[in-house]
Amino acid sequence: MDFRSDNVTGVCPEIMAAIAAANDGSAAAYGEDDWTARVQTAFNDLFEREVTVFPVATGTAANALSLASLAPVYGAIYAHAAAHITVDECNAPEFYTGGAKVVPVPGADGKIRADDLDGLLANATPHGHHNAQPAAVSLSQATEVGTVYAVDEVAAIGAACRHHGVALHMDGARIANAVEHLGCSFADVTWRAGVDALSFGATKNGAMAAEAVVFFNPDFAARMPFLRKRAGHLFSKMRFLSAQLEAYLRNDVWRRNAAHANAAAKRLVDGISGLPGVALRHPLQANEIFVQLPAAVIDGLQADGFHFHPWGNPADNVVRLVTGFSTAMADIDRFVMRATELSA
Amino acid sequence: MDFRSDNVTGVCPEIMAAIAAANDGSAAAYGEDDWTARVQTAFNDLFEREVTVFPVATGTAANALSLASLAPVYGAIYAHAAAHITVDECNAPEFYTGGAKVVPVPGADGKIRADDLDGLLANATPHGHHNAQPAAVSLSQATEVGTVYAVDEVAAIGAACRHHGVALHMDGARIANAVEHLGCSFADVTWRAGVDALSFGATKNGAMAAEAVVFFNPDFAARMPFLRKRAGHLFSKMRFLSAQLEAYLRNDVWRRNAAHANAAAKRLVDGISGLPGVALRHPLQANEIFVQLPAAVIDGLQADGFHFHPWGNPADNVVRLVTGFSTAMADIDRFVMRATELSA
Amino acid sequence: MDFRSDNVTGVCPEIMAAIAAANDGSAAAYGEDDWTARVQTAFNDLFEREVTVFPVATGTAANALSLASLAPVYGAIYAHAAAHITVDECNAPEFYTGGAKVVPVPGADGKIRADDLDGLLANATPHGHHNAQPAAVSLSQATEVGTVYAVDEVAAIGAACRHHGVALHMDGARIANAVEHLGCSFADVTWRAGVDALSFGATKNGAMAAEAVVFFNPDFAARMPFLRKRAGHLFSKMRFLSAQLEAYLRNDVWRRNAAHANAAAKRLVDGISGLPGVALRHPLQANEIFVQLPAAVIDGLQADGFHFHPWGNPADNVVRLVTGFSTAMADIDRFVMRATELSA
Amino acid sequence: MDFRSDNVTGVCPEIMAAIAAANDGSAAAYGEDDWTARVQTAFNDLFEREVTVFPVATGTAANALSLASLAPVYGAIYAHAAAHITVDECNAPEFYTGGAKVVPVPGADGKIRADDLDGLLANATPHGHHNAQPAAVSLSQATEVGTVYAVDEVAAIGAACRHHGVALHMDGARIANAVEHLGCSFADVTWRAGVDALSFGATKNGAMAAEAVVFFNPDFAARMPFLRKRAGHLFSKMRFLSAQLEAYLRNDVWRRNAAHANAAAKRLVDGISGLPGVALRHPLQANEIFVQLPAAVIDGLQADGFHFHPWGNPADNVVRLVTGFSTAMADIDRFVMRATELSA
Repeated sequence: MDFRSDNVTGVCPEIMAAIAAANDGSAAAYGEDDWTARVQTAFNDLFEREVTVFPVATGTAANALSLASLAPVYGAIYAHAAAHITVDECNAPEFYTGGAKVVPVPGADGKIRADDLDGLLANATPHGHHNAQPAAVSLSQATEVGTVYAVDEVAAIGAACRHHGVALHMDGARIANAVEHLGCSFADVTWRAGVDALSFGATKNGAMAAEAVVFFNPDFAARMPFLRKRAGHLFSKMRFLSAQLEAYLRNDVWRRNAAHANAAAKRLVDGISGLPGVALRHPLQANEIFVQLPAAVIDGLQADGFHFHPWGNPADNVVRLVTGFSTAMADIDRFVMRATELSA
Repeated sequence: MDFRSDNVTGVCPEIMAAIAAANDGSAAAYGEDDWTARVQTAFNDLFEREVTVFPVATGTAANALSLASLAPVYGAIYAHAAAHITVDECNAPEFYTGGAKVVPVPGADGKIRADDLDGLLANATPHGHHNAQPAAVSLSQATEVGTVYAVDEVAAIGAACRHHGVALHMDGARIANAVEHLGCSFADVTWRAGVDALSFGATKNGAMAAEAVVFFNPDFAARMPFLRKRAGHLFSKMRFLSAQLEAYLRNDVWRRNAAHANAAAKRLVDGISGLPGVALRHPLQANEIFVQLPAAVIDGLQADGFHFHPWGNPADNVVRLVTGFSTAMADIDRFVMRATELSA
Repeated sequence: MDFRSDNVTGVCPEIMAAIAAANDGSAAAYGEDDWTARVQTAFNDLFEREVTVFPVATGTAANALSLASLAPVYGAIYAHAAAHITVDECNAPEFYTGGAKVVPVPGADGKIRADDLDGLLANATPHGHHNAQPAAVSLSQATEVGTVYAVDEVAAIGAACRHHGVALHMDGARIANAVEHLGCSFADVTWRAGVDALSFGATKNGAMAAEAVVFFNPDFAARMPFLRKRAGHLFSKMRFLSAQLEAYLRNDVWRRNAAHANAAAKRLVDGISGLPGVALRHPLQANEIFVQLPAAVIDGLQADGFHFHPWGNPADNVVRLVTGFSTAMADIDRFVMRATELSA
Repeated sequence: MDFRSDNVTGVCPEIMAAIAAANDGSAAAYGEDDWTARVQTAFNDLFEREVTVFPVATGTAANALSLASLAPVYGAIYAHAAAHITVDECNAPEFYTGGAKVVPVPGADGKIRADDLDGLLANATPHGHHNAQPAAVSLSQATEVGTVYAVDEVAAIGAACRHHGVALHMDGARIANAVEHLGCSFADVTWRAGVDALSFGATKNGAMAAEAVVFFNPDFAARMPFLRKRAGHLFSKMRFLSAQLEAYLRNDVWRRNAAHANAAAKRLVDGISGLPGVALRHPLQANEIFVQLPAAVIDGLQADGFHFHPWGNPADNVVRLVTGFSTAMADIDRFVMRATELSA
């Protein structure tokens, strides 16, 4: 009954088995192993084109290394005001880029609008080299508030980026949940829509600690082997990292896990949305629910052992509920039942 | 007839004479000279207490070095969304601090409000060490739009800073203009109001290239000798930098220059404010005027050789007019006369 | 028959079992879990005092984060000219410290001598704040050439560090091999000898990807939660990292693994040291062998499928042979037999 | 009687006059002025080709900005172990490059030998992207010990740089003294010999605070406008900086000043070299003398008011004597006479 985050989950069986199976004799270190070679191919298949892949272990590493590949030290990176890179990575983007500026962009439901972005980029350097130079835009897919950019929304942002000569990064910590929601291909919502570099997340959706920086524009990949090493994110026993990614992509494990998490969230929302005083703060499109509940309901659920985080101003009585690949549907039903009782 | 900025001005006579006079034989390098020692004393007198002073040559250096002394690499620095450090220093604060984040704070007339700041600081770290840690607030005095914080406005912000355990920096690129406007002492609007470190500007108000980082809290000064040297801002022939500051402070040259600039700006505003279609965008409190003018007036003045910059959205017909210590009152009168004719 | 490195090995059974066992339901993220709490206690026991422990996943991360905790941006870090931080981390120490300088110190058998260090520190700042300021010394234990600092050698360096007011870091990527060789306690060769911070390695000796930064001087630990997060080295599913360390320390798994690796190396050296043209380059004290072999022996061994790296100038015919926790003694015997045949 | 350094000197008359003359009305800020445009042309003339010039105010800024233009964050910069960038700039190169490594290269008389460099570069990356990547070589001309690279020595180093694909920087804090000694053109000893970027010094040779970064390879210049601004080294009243450089180049003022300083040093050395116990440590080729003197002579000269610095190990009784553009020949003669008396 733990809805605090999708990173409170463990590891899904296929990935744990793959880790164990990778423990087979000696293997070349630092990514010169067979698992890592196969992961490269698997990502080519997933994205329907040749891509360049760098496995890393955390989402912050994936984001910060991506941005360091896209933005010069005097660059500006546009991201939503609530984006993980803006507020939750303790200045990792600034650190890795050598001091680029993350410009917070407001927008409803956690999304940047292409028109707003176009206006910002058009007016970004009234004072020439006195201003930070627009270098990249970063989208979170799914967003921090559980919404998902439609393919055409990404494409419109991609077009604005092209028009202004800046790169497009996607923070895909929950990209599997987003793709599952959209019912599109990974290619559709990434490089076909103008994305140059992707932080491909697997940890929240069933891996132990595995993400990948995926470059669609190979120009941006050239410095990565060095940037990753100097950041301490090149794993010596890389096979165990790559084995996770391989198992995650094989047989669409990613999709099954994401579909489960999304369905669990939907079931929860469907179950409580008619209750008095319940108001969803953002459309539910992935596996994160931001919902206002009566204080008595919040207190009662917590007293009964349901774990979740309050969100934002305490006076608003908004909580965040996150489902994961391993959320038990019985726990969802218990939550709904108990919330219903508490609302009576 | 040049109203583009106060940095298009030259050097006032006293300061130029002091530079020439400092060219007298050999002197110890790197600030071990007599001029620099006297400047330290002069600043103690100006601020009515012991302060620690580091002369540098540019405002950006003064700001960036100040902030690097106040904020850790994982820190957040709160500044107005239009502040020089936010938008006009090409990521210098991020560079010098090693990647601290400059958080843009909105506010009317270029000012941060103490209440807004208090709210931001109170809610800055909902996720603990995942968030950038509030470290400093930076005020511009005068602001980027020519307004001036009242002493009690600074004091309220200083109190909020103290309450939340963050340092207070003042970007005083135009502090002489501000102090002259306020009619207070330098002490009143700085350390007595809670300021820990000040970028004391002289360049815009009559010096050739001379600013000073002034620390009121000596704890923050300890790392400066090293930070300044590693940034290449320790001048070997420092006497010529210190001589400027000494002359600037002696006999209140700073006040005479600032009073002239402020008076010139006021004379200009008084002269045009009754004309049709003229609308001041911000209260005039120092030497920068942001004013909406009819397009025909703008075009006519420029055709006649008046130099100034358009500001913001071109459709708004807003221009920035800046006066300086050497602005000729006759030029002001010519501007007013011509604007009047063009409005007829 | 893979002697390329101890990081070509897999994961020892106890650690793999612990990873699997940790996959038990939900757990608080980011180190707030029970495994991480127990690891803290286990390290206290190991070091016979209270220490502060931060698990990370790579040795480079452990080193760079340690150094960033010890040295200011204008600092100098003294390390052996062949140390991993000097030559094999692609500027990670410079990156993490914000530009501190790693000063290469020569010394026989991969070791810094206390007297040399004392002389360097005594003369480090003839030009005051123009020079980088001595901040830390970093020792590799075992060293890059397979030797081990005796306890009194570390203590002499620790005394020099204290005398000159600099911190002492130990890169313990192979500290288990060193401690096993010395027959001392971890405490003896670390904090009792003056070490302030330790990169405690487990990956090379049986873990999957697990190291720990251990602070003996708590003053240096204060900034680590932020430094680790902004570097992307705070794992969300930390329990899987901590579970490795817990299993590694439990029942002295570390010692059994290290003893095996050391014994395998000794057996190999004993077996070949009498052969013609065989010359050990450095005393064998841990699990790395640097040995000159006749060219025909090198070629023959490689042709037979023995994997190892040439080292240094190819004309010298020196190779590096590294044993690990899982090296088969039969492979050692095969190596010796084949080398003997090839020498005949 | 001040032989401490050439930066204890003041400003030569032509440059001081040019500063005063530049104080003529308003001028566009930040280098958009006429003086700066003329300086660009003057440098083109001096170097007999089109170059790209960025005036700055300190030598450390010139060096650090040059290197930041040449080296990536994961780069290695090779410089003499005694070079200013290696030991006297408090980590400025590391700071500006974002953590590139300055690799100290030994060599007699303060010089790097091309052969040594070639060997270092050929063996710099045995471990690929684990090693810092060779990016640049930096020569000091004249060197820190007062010697001067011959044109063919620079050319040999330039050829090695080209061969290994690294850039060549020259720290020309005293380049006028070197060129005057060599009797060659600036072109001969810079771009014709393979130099890509030059820190062109003027401050030590008669300017107040004026250096220039000169790029011969325009590829390296592209990022400089941003790098300079974000470092706070873009002067608002740039005309006063450019005016210094203009006057310095006009009518070969640089040569007259350098010739005087070199001649003064030669006169001093000639005067004392026959005295008992006097031993020049390095060939005198510019304006810096490193000489061993009997302790009694050192003490006697200092007692008589001659100022100079001891150098290196005090037991060696070596002092550094630096002459400048304004050194009085009478002071030289007095020094020689007094040293002679003290030797008697």
